[in-house]
Amino acid sequence: MDEQAGAGPQDNWLEDFSPGMSFRTASKVITEAEIIDFARQFDPQYYHLDPMAAEASDFGGLIASGIHMISASFRLFFDLDLWPNAIIASPGMDAVRFLKPVRPGDEIRVTVEVTEIRPSKSKPDRGVVVMRHETWNQRDERILSVDCMHMLKYRNPPDGS
Amino acid sequence: MDEQAGAGPQDNWLEDFSPGMSFRTASKVITEAEIIDFARQFDPQYYHLDPMAAEASDFGGLIASGIHMISASFRLFFDLDLWPNAIIASPGMDAVRFLKPVRPGDEIRVTVEVTEIRPSKSKPDRGVVVMRHETWNQRDERILSVDCMHMLKYRNPPDGS
Repeated sequence: MDEQAGAGPQDNWLEDFSPGMSFRTASKVITEAEIIDFARQFDPQYYHLDPMAAEASDFGGLIASGIHMISASFRLFFDLDLWPNAIIASPGMDAVRFLKPVRPGDEIRVTVEVTEIRPSKSKPDRGVVVMRHETWNQRDERILSVDCMHMLKYRNPPDGS
Repeated sequence: MDEQAGAGPQDNWLEDFSPGMSFRTASKVITEAEIIDFARQFDPQYYHLDPMAAEASDFGGLIASGIHMISASFRLFFDLDLWPNAIIASPGMDAVRFLKPVRPGDEIRVTVEVTEIRPSKSKPDRGVVVMRHETWNQRDERILSVDCMHMLKYRNPPDGS
């Protein structure tokens, strides 16, 4: 299995990916200010927003919104810049699982593995690469898992068109 | 089928939900500034970030990040404040589908329907309510669908404990 750390843009297209290929991102510390800022905008539940109330709760302190962790994890992934010319869009995500809380000062990083390639049946110039995105903390605990579909163009479509 | 617009906090617990119940949120206009601000933080692909480059692309203009639309949709949902005392956390989401692009000035709203109640096997004081969250634009086109699990406590656990 290949494992590639991101080193600037790589001009990959759909045919450059195959199941088992993997990638790893840089890491990022999640600060209390970031947790509160995201919560204020998008997920204003007290345990994401209010350190005192969170401290008194079962959580024992502030935890990051799961949607924040999806967002921060994809930012790390997009920074790999794997397919600057091939990306069309993402049709969606499956099996999103929030596995452990993320607290202020935790450092997250993402590993990504290609699990499936699905050529489009209707448009021969494109297809979907399915990747399992897993986010880890500094104790190598998995905090998030997402199966994401990314629709990419072929450099050279397989029918030669 | 009940349909309830949000009108301040409702102190619901797990036993207050049943399949078929539905809820609808207020609506929100998504601005160009919000699209760019989210993209800059979390999803810096040119078609979310750069109006000129997006205009010249197949998208014909800026579109919002799908992760931004998940975030904005859950904000509208959390503003219903359905379960201020019962919520524990969300274990995850399934079948996230980005169905149509959202452009600056589009107005989104969310409808939510309870699809399943899953009492916890290991902890009798709680269970998961599964809800289909669907986000619509001002033309009543569905732009996002998410099946989300929300773990809630019972007010009165069914075994009487």
